[in-house]
Amino acid sequence: MKKFATVTALILVVVLVVGAAYAQFAKPEEAIKYRKAVMLLIAQHFKRMGAVVQGKAPYEKEAFSSNAAAVQMLATLPWEACMVPGTDKGDTTLSPAVFQQPAEFKKAAESFEADTAMLAGAAKDGDLDTIKAQFGQVAKNCKSCHTSFRQK
Amino acid sequence: MKKFATVTALILVVVLVVGAAYAQFAKPEEAIKYRKAVMLLIAQHFKRMGAVVQGKAPYEKEAFSSNAAAVQMLATLPWEACMVPGTDKGDTTLSPAVFQQPAEFKKAAESFEADTAMLAGAAKDGDLDTIKAQFGQVAKNCKSCHTSFRQK
Repeated sequence: MKKFATVTALILVVVLVVGAAYAQFAKPEEAIKYRKAVMLLIAQHFKRMGAVVQGKAPYEKEAFSSNAAAVQMLATLPWEACMVPGTDKGDTTLSPAVFQQPAEFKKAAESFEADTAMLAGAAKDGDLDTIKAQFGQVAKNCKSCHTSFRQK
Repeated sequence: MKKFATVTALILVVVLVVGAAYAQFAKPEEAIKYRKAVMLLIAQHFKRMGAVVQGKAPYEKEAFSSNAAAVQMLATLPWEACMVPGTDKGDTTLSPAVFQQPAEFKKAAESFEADTAMLAGAAKDGDLDTIKAQFGQVAKNCKSCHTSFRQK
């Protein structure tokens, strides 16, 4: 009975979240364009940090920190747009797995948000070794989520 | 002499800012795509707030505030990408006026940043009348900058 209640509560949460996500976008195409825009910006700021971490660009605390802060904020944005029903079709690489494993997808999203927040914190502190380690953590998140929830 | 020094300093600032902007993007097309992505996201979050301000959607403090915070952060992003030389050509509506009147463009950008920050502050406080007034200020900024610096 307890299990049933838990499952029911879980379904309710998913329905509410999906419902809210759906309401934010007038058309599925709008959600696709929105999340692609977010991903493009994340990629751009991530690339700039990557150049520093790989020693291809000089480390400048303020610039790095502003890139990390941008990614932290952007990391909170795309999930809702990813959960709009039907948006695994069309001009997108979103995998149907998002709708088949919503709890795992949510977990991956939360993990990305947490790790980008840690990176932004490290960037503010300015210790390059910590920054590099945390940057690696964020990169792992990208890869793992893309493996599970992006179409090849 | 003082005037000459001021003008020289101003030119130096412009050169440095343009130089930095240019270095961030591998190709002009990348800068165009970047700033279009930012504008798409700003428009989306601004539209959500607009629906509330116009009474077409209910006011929910947390949701409104998160939209305002998103716009505040996004408002800091597009300017550098707008100042990459040659990016008034191609798949863009950027006006050449950006390069002809860089000081005016910078002023418009700063005004937008300041007003979106005020809106985010008002949204946090949660007084709907203040929010509406400040939303109007931000909207004025959009319109004025688009009139001067966006091609018809």
